[in-house]
Amino acid sequence: MVKKYRFGKPFDTEAVVSELKAEEGTDDVIGAGINILENGLSIRMAERTMVFGLGENMHGINKRGNVYVSNNSDDPHHQEDKVSLYGSHNFIVAEDYVLGEGLNTIGIFIDYPGKLRFDIGFTHTDELRITFEDMDFELYLIEPEDVDDALVSIVSQFRRMTGKSYIPPRWAFGYGQSRWSYPDEASVREIARKHKENSIPLDMIYLDIDYMDSYMDFTVNKEAFPDLSGLSRELKEEGIYLVPIIDAGVKKKEGYDIDEEGLDKDYFCENEEGEVFEAAVWPGISHFPDVLRPEVREWFGAKYERLTSLGIEGFWNDMNEPALFYTKRGLDKLYDKVERYKGNYNLSLEEFWDMTGASSSISNNNEDYSSIYHNTYMGRICHDKVHNLYGFNMTRAAGEALERISPDKRMLLFSRSSYIGMHRYGGIWTGDNKAWWSHLLLNIKMMPSLNMCGFIYSGADLGGFGTDTNEELMLRWLEFGIFTPLMRNHSALGTRLKEAYQFDDTRTFSNIIGLRYMLLPYIYSEYLKAVNNDGVYFKTLHMVYPMDEIAREVEDQLMVGDNLMIAPVYEQNKTGRYVYLPENMLLLRFRAYDDYDEEYLEKGHHYIWADKSEVLIFLRKDRKLPLSMKKHQTVGDIDFNEPTVISYSDKAMEYEYYMDDGVSRNGRVEIRSI
Amino acid sequence: MVKKYRFGKPFDTEAVVSELKAEEGTDDVIGAGINILENGLSIRMAERTMVFGLGENMHGINKRGNVYVSNNSDDPHHQEDKVSLYGSHNFIVAEDYVLGEGLNTIGIFIDYPGKLRFDIGFTHTDELRITFEDMDFELYLIEPEDVDDALVSIVSQFRRMTGKSYIPPRWAFGYGQSRWSYPDEASVREIARKHKENSIPLDMIYLDIDYMDSYMDFTVNKEAFPDLSGLSRELKEEGIYLVPIIDAGVKKKEGYDIDEEGLDKDYFCENEEGEVFEAAVWPGISHFPDVLRPEVREWFGAKYERLTSLGIEGFWNDMNEPALFYTKRGLDKLYDKVERYKGNYNLSLEEFWDMTGASSSISNNNEDYSSIYHNTYMGRICHDKVHNLYGFNMTRAAGEALERISPDKRMLLFSRSSYIGMHRYGGIWTGDNKAWWSHLLLNIKMMPSLNMCGFIYSGADLGGFGTDTNEELMLRWLEFGIFTPLMRNHSALGTRLKEAYQFDDTRTFSNIIGLRYMLLPYIYSEYLKAVNNDGVYFKTLHMVYPMDEIAREVEDQLMVGDNLMIAPVYEQNKTGRYVYLPENMLLLRFRAYDDYDEEYLEKGHHYIWADKSEVLIFLRKDRKLPLSMKKHQTVGDIDFNEPTVISYSDKAMEYEYYMDDGVSRNGRVEIRSI
Repeated sequence: MVKKYRFGKPFDTEAVVSELKAEEGTDDVIGAGINILENGLSIRMAERTMVFGLGENMHGINKRGNVYVSNNSDDPHHQEDKVSLYGSHNFIVAEDYVLGEGLNTIGIFIDYPGKLRFDIGFTHTDELRITFEDMDFELYLIEPEDVDDALVSIVSQFRRMTGKSYIPPRWAFGYGQSRWSYPDEASVREIARKHKENSIPLDMIYLDIDYMDSYMDFTVNKEAFPDLSGLSRELKEEGIYLVPIIDAGVKKKEGYDIDEEGLDKDYFCENEEGEVFEAAVWPGISHFPDVLRPEVREWFGAKYERLTSLGIEGFWNDMNEPALFYTKRGLDKLYDKVERYKGNYNLSLEEFWDMTGASSSISNNNEDYSSIYHNTYMGRICHDKVHNLYGFNMTRAAGEALERISPDKRMLLFSRSSYIGMHRYGGIWTGDNKAWWSHLLLNIKMMPSLNMCGFIYSGADLGGFGTDTNEELMLRWLEFGIFTPLMRNHSALGTRLKEAYQFDDTRTFSNIIGLRYMLLPYIYSEYLKAVNNDGVYFKTLHMVYPMDEIAREVEDQLMVGDNLMIAPVYEQNKTGRYVYLPENMLLLRFRAYDDYDEEYLEKGHHYIWADKSEVLIFLRKDRKLPLSMKKHQTVGDIDFNEPTVISYSDKAMEYEYYMDDGVSRNGRVEIRSI
Repeated sequence: MVKKYRFGKPFDTEAVVSELKAEEGTDDVIGAGINILENGLSIRMAERTMVFGLGENMHGINKRGNVYVSNNSDDPHHQEDKVSLYGSHNFIVAEDYVLGEGLNTIGIFIDYPGKLRFDIGFTHTDELRITFEDMDFELYLIEPEDVDDALVSIVSQFRRMTGKSYIPPRWAFGYGQSRWSYPDEASVREIARKHKENSIPLDMIYLDIDYMDSYMDFTVNKEAFPDLSGLSRELKEEGIYLVPIIDAGVKKKEGYDIDEEGLDKDYFCENEEGEVFEAAVWPGISHFPDVLRPEVREWFGAKYERLTSLGIEGFWNDMNEPALFYTKRGLDKLYDKVERYKGNYNLSLEEFWDMTGASSSISNNNEDYSSIYHNTYMGRICHDKVHNLYGFNMTRAAGEALERISPDKRMLLFSRSSYIGMHRYGGIWTGDNKAWWSHLLLNIKMMPSLNMCGFIYSGADLGGFGTDTNEELMLRWLEFGIFTPLMRNHSALGTRLKEAYQFDDTRTFSNIIGLRYMLLPYIYSEYLKAVNNDGVYFKTLHMVYPMDEIAREVEDQLMVGDNLMIAPVYEQNKTGRYVYLPENMLLLRFRAYDDYDEEYLEKGHHYIWADKSEVLIFLRKDRKLPLSMKKHQTVGDIDFNEPTVISYSDKAMEYEYYMDDGVSRNGRVEIRSI
């Protein structure tokens, strides 16, 4: 049961697709135990209260104890005190919060594209407080249809009202290799060759910014990639897809037709004075398509055809918070500060920080964001009010265009920045993480939250993007990554090379990545199931075993689909870990698709050895697991029609196997019992 | 069995106190399986090899898998990829490394005060490689005297050869409250009053930099602290000691006698040209005492008397890496870069980073360090060669002086920067951490490593220094902090106030901190025991149960002294955790000194509930625990003579209770069985 309430004059984000009339008045909001404050909302939490949701954010699955700010940010330092990442997903489920004399569970979606602050028991342990910049928003309250399964019921209703999640082509469930950047055709060919030589499956090679000519969107550096079309064709013959990046900013340049068109048509964002807004990003000074306007989305989206016409079938949209390296305003501030202090070698600390602060705050700052303007259906509005919609709409532009360009065949699309609703058009990756063990654990914890918000095709940069990884972390991260729908190894310029053959023990890498392909009949079926049934692919234990008092606190084990539990190892130098089983399970200990052991384990606590060359999979009691138990080099090698089935017990219940042709946009999903 | 080898022309750091003649040749080094490379040393690691030591560093107790660089650094961002903290402790124990056809265990101390890199299985999983800037060092190889207890035996020999650890006065084992900064006498009095009002014990109030006049060492801001002597006396009557900070840099200022004296006597470090080296720190442009020279140490140390004469009995030495905010060289570089680009609003990214990089790298950079020179017994040498000795010698200056100033009564002294050997003069705190749960866990894991290196009086800023904490983290951190010899709540300017009465549930804070005082008879006895016997106070489970295959991987439980094990909770929203018991133990679940339960637990794995208001203490089988089970406000309230004893079983073995008068420098340690 979903009810909608309108406060002030909200901007229509188009996050919600179901038609709901706003309720009159707010008595029901107050009746639900939600206090309406001058600048926000609050509810009271009990000792037992847990809060779930918020999609892409730091901290645990239970978000209690911290502050989160929806304010899409390009900041690669995801430390524990970071309050904003790249997406804004203002959906929470407050379980067992205080309502009158008792406890209640409710879903809350706040459709508000500006900066929004959630203080979930940080300042006061018993208060959840949501603070707005202005009180213009739509509030959706979701009551569970099934109180015994309140969390799942609320998530399912939320997903129904926000629309079906994106489904990429099936090859996009393979393993992808990325780096900033493979500089030319030869290096791309080498990546393909080395994976094959080392029996490491591979379906995608990603092209980061250097494939472009001067970082101009939809261009190709002809010196480095003289024949992208030929390269793409050649690789596709081996089952490997090239996936280029597209950035939000359009280079300001005379003679660059996209920039000139955008200027001619007034399709770029403006500044205070109504001139075209300018800021530097990768291409230098750039202009930013005003993607909140449908006609601009149509125009910008159509440009993807320049690459699809070369055989490209997938894209990743980046820098779309939008990231801003610097503006004239910021440079002037720095130049002025330095001018003021120049020649002074005895600065006070206030002076010193005043000067260096003008440098350290020059990128992605609020003053620059406040100087961007959009022309929307509500008239000219400041970017502040709609900041969190930019990435959503850039990716919507691409998604809608790719559907026009390729009406039959699905294309791969995912984005760095996002907002609720974008999940209908593409997936996300979780941005510029680091080669930190804590980021492997964060990856594990973030997945169910992302799934709740509709982002099922998602994943992190496996092994870490921004710092040097080591063999053990890379392996352990892959051992979790084989379960994430988006499975990509990506790394930053200047970091240690980390393709799967760059370490001492290549064979184990080949085996572990091979397990992904073995698992794909199950993974892909469960993906289709989650999307089609408005469910989630990664579940918390608490979702599946809501009455289990131990399971409710477990955050380092996940359910993958309906039948499996995983318990990844996420610490250095560990050969075992504790695992909690909420019911009897069959432990499958895989070293390779053709090398594994089985062990029946009883409900309860276990300490389980897990060497770094092993993946532990826990099959639920009386369930089945469809697999493709052979060697594969690409997804194309997998026989999805006749999977091998591993069962827990002879009386295992039928498995509902969801399958489609892996290609068609509107292909029929076949459901059969196996 | 310790052997010493000399390579090149090492600087005498005075880290080692035992007289050992260097061996002739290096055949024995090679014979021990240590490869001597052009620029370093390496050993081969087996699957089983674990490496312990390195004192103040990131990551786990087993240091394998990462890179560590001994290069004392003032950088408050202690993320996982950080390779250098504030101290350099080049002592490792390599357990079960490859020697010929078998495995061997050895202790390695590298007495080298320059930059030293340890790659412990990071680049190649089976190689430990130590890389030097130049091959001038002393190498100590320590073979175990007892092969069944190799780790403990090696640590004990290392500790013998580097001298007895520092023992502070007993009141310094109380709880201390600190903040950057309590600005004046009134605020200090309020801290004392509020702790008392809320029944929160307190023995120390720390004064951060703002108590000084313009940040000048050994001065007092007379407006804020018109009568420091009176304030000190008044607080000591309540059992509370004032502990002011002392910084390394001496303000450059005409009329400031310490600066003028230092200049007159040529006691400051020099630059390339032989002029006095200048860099800005808190006081602005400052000079840096050349504390590597005995006469400078004597001169600088004598200045502490200006504060001891006001009744001060404890100090913390800070900024002694030494930290450098900026130099003329660095400012010029920034000014020049900005001059070059000024007026250009279309910078290339290389130009943009060139300019902002001159700002972001202005503090604590290698170029500045390379421009410092010392006049030493080896002549004039560049700071690079001896960088890691600065903090050690500043604190040695203080420690030696305080012994002259107060020959009978011990004084409190600890430092931020350190090197092996400094443990004879004072303790350390672990620098500018953050209110991150991962830093609570890091605190837990770092303690045994610090203890191995002699730093027994040590602790972290409880609750986190640099970011805002929440009530649960503060409580959980205190629940571990009650076991650390240095127990201090400290926080940075601008962060949330976090004195123990600033949260919703003051009573629990009072109870938890009260447990520290209840435990002090045991804690202090075990501290004396560790120091007197060259042992450690915080042990790993592996040290105590070397044959236990589970215990060897446990890094989130510690042994405290000989009789106790602890298993702190270090995650948000957890009410329980897994605990491994290597033998039968008695679980004491304390909510307050007068509110606790006992439960006998069997050897093995347990999931144990632990509410955030509870401290779990595991008493080993047949052991005893001496306590002071009453309410205390200060350490002075504790009856150390007649402790209450809790026993595991009736046949518990006698406990060797170490006690002294808590005050005297050379007071007799009485050992009696209870």
